[in-house]
Amino acid sequence: MSNSPNRRMKIGDFLLCRLKEAGVRHLFGVPGDYNLELLQQLQDTGALKWIGTCSELNASYAADGYARLNGLGALLVTNGVGALSAINGVGGSYSEHVPVICIAGSIPLRSVERGLGMHHTMADGSYDHFLDAYAHVTAAHARLTPRNAAVEIDRLILTAWREKRPVYMELPSDIAYLDIEVPADPLTLADAPSDPERLRSCIAAIVRRLSAAKSPAILVDSDADRFGVAPELMQLAEKMQIPIAVINTAKSVIDEPFPHYLGIYIGKPSEPHVREAIETSDCLLAIGYRPLEVTTGDFSASLPANTIHARGHSVDVGDDNYQAVTLKEVLNGVIDAIPRATSRASRPVAPAVARPHADPSAKLTQAAYWQAMQGYLREGDVLFVDNGTSYALFGLKFPPKCTFVGSVNWGSIGYSVGALLGTLTAAPERRHILFVGDGSFQVTAQELSTILRHDHKPVIFLINNGGYTIERGYLGKTETYNDIANWSYADLPKVFRRDTRARSFVVKTVNDLQDALAAPNDTLIFVESIMDPHDALAPVMNSSNKGADLDYGPRGPQRSDNQLRPVQ
Amino acid sequence: MSNSPNRRMKIGDFLLCRLKEAGVRHLFGVPGDYNLELLQQLQDTGALKWIGTCSELNASYAADGYARLNGLGALLVTNGVGALSAINGVGGSYSEHVPVICIAGSIPLRSVERGLGMHHTMADGSYDHFLDAYAHVTAAHARLTPRNAAVEIDRLILTAWREKRPVYMELPSDIAYLDIEVPADPLTLADAPSDPERLRSCIAAIVRRLSAAKSPAILVDSDADRFGVAPELMQLAEKMQIPIAVINTAKSVIDEPFPHYLGIYIGKPSEPHVREAIETSDCLLAIGYRPLEVTTGDFSASLPANTIHARGHSVDVGDDNYQAVTLKEVLNGVIDAIPRATSRASRPVAPAVARPHADPSAKLTQAAYWQAMQGYLREGDVLFVDNGTSYALFGLKFPPKCTFVGSVNWGSIGYSVGALLGTLTAAPERRHILFVGDGSFQVTAQELSTILRHDHKPVIFLINNGGYTIERGYLGKTETYNDIANWSYADLPKVFRRDTRARSFVVKTVNDLQDALAAPNDTLIFVESIMDPHDALAPVMNSSNKGADLDYGPRGPQRSDNQLRPVQ
Repeated sequence: MSNSPNRRMKIGDFLLCRLKEAGVRHLFGVPGDYNLELLQQLQDTGALKWIGTCSELNASYAADGYARLNGLGALLVTNGVGALSAINGVGGSYSEHVPVICIAGSIPLRSVERGLGMHHTMADGSYDHFLDAYAHVTAAHARLTPRNAAVEIDRLILTAWREKRPVYMELPSDIAYLDIEVPADPLTLADAPSDPERLRSCIAAIVRRLSAAKSPAILVDSDADRFGVAPELMQLAEKMQIPIAVINTAKSVIDEPFPHYLGIYIGKPSEPHVREAIETSDCLLAIGYRPLEVTTGDFSASLPANTIHARGHSVDVGDDNYQAVTLKEVLNGVIDAIPRATSRASRPVAPAVARPHADPSAKLTQAAYWQAMQGYLREGDVLFVDNGTSYALFGLKFPPKCTFVGSVNWGSIGYSVGALLGTLTAAPERRHILFVGDGSFQVTAQELSTILRHDHKPVIFLINNGGYTIERGYLGKTETYNDIANWSYADLPKVFRRDTRARSFVVKTVNDLQDALAAPNDTLIFVESIMDPHDALAPVMNSSNKGADLDYGPRGPQRSDNQLRPVQ
Repeated sequence: MSNSPNRRMKIGDFLLCRLKEAGVRHLFGVPGDYNLELLQQLQDTGALKWIGTCSELNASYAADGYARLNGLGALLVTNGVGALSAINGVGGSYSEHVPVICIAGSIPLRSVERGLGMHHTMADGSYDHFLDAYAHVTAAHARLTPRNAAVEIDRLILTAWREKRPVYMELPSDIAYLDIEVPADPLTLADAPSDPERLRSCIAAIVRRLSAAKSPAILVDSDADRFGVAPELMQLAEKMQIPIAVINTAKSVIDEPFPHYLGIYIGKPSEPHVREAIETSDCLLAIGYRPLEVTTGDFSASLPANTIHARGHSVDVGDDNYQAVTLKEVLNGVIDAIPRATSRASRPVAPAVARPHADPSAKLTQAAYWQAMQGYLREGDVLFVDNGTSYALFGLKFPPKCTFVGSVNWGSIGYSVGALLGTLTAAPERRHILFVGDGSFQVTAQELSTILRHDHKPVIFLINNGGYTIERGYLGKTETYNDIANWSYADLPKVFRRDTRARSFVVKTVNDLQDALAAPNDTLIFVESIMDPHDALAPVMNSSNKGADLDYGPRGPQRSDNQLRPVQ
């Protein structure tokens, strides 16, 4: 603990100050009467920049996207209606391991203590419902009071950062302007250092196994990104000359042109060389591995029995479980101790090649579309995918230093549009490309207006194929419940911003698509591509088909075979 | 219990059958892989009509609106992402006492039992998070299994209907097609009959007090609508010749031209004759009264100490609390037993008059706007208000048989657009008019496309005043955090439906508005009215101003007086 003298601050100012010290520069959300007082403090202090969103769900997605690039994100909502509107996005941050701070400006403490009925509540005499609901989707939660605010604000911010999970705090509207005593030292985002003995033993155990192995390999899940250890993993792979594969959720966490990068491991559907390297490795180091049906080819993944499982704050080596160690210290220790290998050859990587399509005037197909997209990607892109046929993005080879953003575990359609606002805000200097289907886009379309309002220049590729094609692969190939309204998507930019200079394209052929891809990116580019409702790349369809068997079981309706099936 | 032999049905078919028997004719929601199997059963059996929405939040609003007119509503979402996206709307149904059944197609029981990691979950090994979260916003919840489905489906539907609250059920995706034994008799929506002695005593106690009173009166909250006792209350008022007032949440529950209808009681801001009749009554009968700051003029309401409080299933008379009685039986008993009064005169009600505006070419003001609206209303309208300056609607006099729909307790902006889809679906033969502000509209704007898709013909009055004017009354009169993007709202219908025949208007003057109001309602009418960001009727501004003092307390920033204040 510091010996610096404490100081006094208003609770709201202290919260904003701590967020700023934690690296949060923007706050997303929707004003409401219970949070306006904090917004006024934000405005008066200039601590953070306010990015108002059209809805709280979109604010939660934006904060998630922002946190993925920035290390930490935050949103501000109002009591009850705002908090519950944002909870799906915050739940997604939990599922996807993203540190987000959800602040609900809540009813005054005066009303809580006196049991006064207030709007934006369940009006049933209890004021804990939203805290209770959030307890199930966050790593920590609290209602701030003048007594606990100095402690709780730091605890919640630190918990979010350390656990890479969201937290939830309620700031009663009548305490933001009250003075409290607060710590004099700035907040430092840091893990508690590892237990020295556990760290030494853990590193030694890993080094022993890796050194003795004949075919060691590394398998990376998204926690490698969240805990910021991708550079260490690449350093280790390089020093040992061993292959490194990723789970689909971790696409691009390891730079794809990196010589030791193998590809995506997803069980049976993996490329054979990836599958062999992982499944037959005699010492696999797995980072944050979380097997779900969507990350394991419907549980067809099969890691070696002696896999070392390293997580953010613990490691399993054989029967031993090491606690009080941090992933970064473990990996750095292993890199230092492991002998440099010279014998293993790196696998030659074929460069990505965009081949011209046979008939550029033919109706656009998914195959031609994704082939063209391969040629469009460039170094440093932030590449977004929403759930749907755009999952074909997993099959593209990414140039160096690209960042993949998606919601693979949580799989909330519409996530990408809100999250795009977040990544654009976090890193406006990069090129951001969104691949989204019509069904996903309709959920959160209005946030395009906020993106336009702030003069961002993403490239948005929307597939208009009349509905939920990925669901047609599960069930209801031609059923109307998978249809959606057919919007004039490309007209939306000018509706959302009257004076927009956005370039909109409606694409029906490869030629049309090439024209759109040639447009200069000095403003937002919106490309609506019309494609067949039954067209999807084989990996996407296969995944849906197999998912149906898993979802509905042996007596399910998928057996009547009206599913979308890939063309062989 | 019935002695009819049981029969066998598939679980999903049974659920749909029970919903239909309970009077639910439409199901709102978004398809997802975990609910497609139920959608297929819906399609195959034709039990209900599917109304796909753009988002689950909108589905929850639609189901709420539908339930308000239909008596019961339902929505279907998918696991986790869908359930949490809908929870704000379902929470609103709880706060507003609306019986809605939220069905989540959930991960297969196989995965729950084996602990298999699945998408749309928190991916942390537990599958109860969403049930747990919903426990805080519903009257009952359950995960269906083949053992409990026959019992739980009936329990949950009946609980929603009896308690006038939402319920939540998870239908695992691998059990919908499994055969179970189900009751042979159709589901009957009915309360258990009252305890005969309690009912007799309760009626006698009420009759005794009412008969002895010199100035009895009735005060009605929205439960009178939910429990369907408005006709009984009007009958009682008529028989006794006594005045009947409503809380703002219950506007239109008592037909406004009814001779004994007094007006809205909201504490100090009430009209003097309403306030006097309620506060000085020597025997006030209050129906489902729930005092919140927004229904009581910031707690300035003051009911007489001896007020009789009648609720859906219990009554307080003096020190006695009567349980096991139903509101309808109580009221019918009182009507039968009470002597018919002849001495009291009914209050003459001034008919609503729309006065022409002084200068029809002047810039449109809120005063002129609402004056014109008064003349536009007609018998039988369904009249929607979203939170904002459109709350001026409370000041209009409604013609006979109108229905007011709003979210006053819960106050979730954007509710109205989704709910409008619901009421249009429930009662397409009526005229539905929406009064909404730009900020509220932006939250759920996309559901306009579903309204257009189904050829509905509501009249939508959108106030474009550049942001959250109602919040400017709390704080930040000119602060940018209360600003929003300026959409071309009137262009949205043609973007959402390419071949729409909707009539769109952009209104800047009274003349413009009159032109729009003269348009034939043979298709959807969308009227965007441009008004000043600082213009609002005095009751709306006063409410915001007073709310600020309540929200922020004596040290709050509202004291710096940058609030929007009504022109005196």
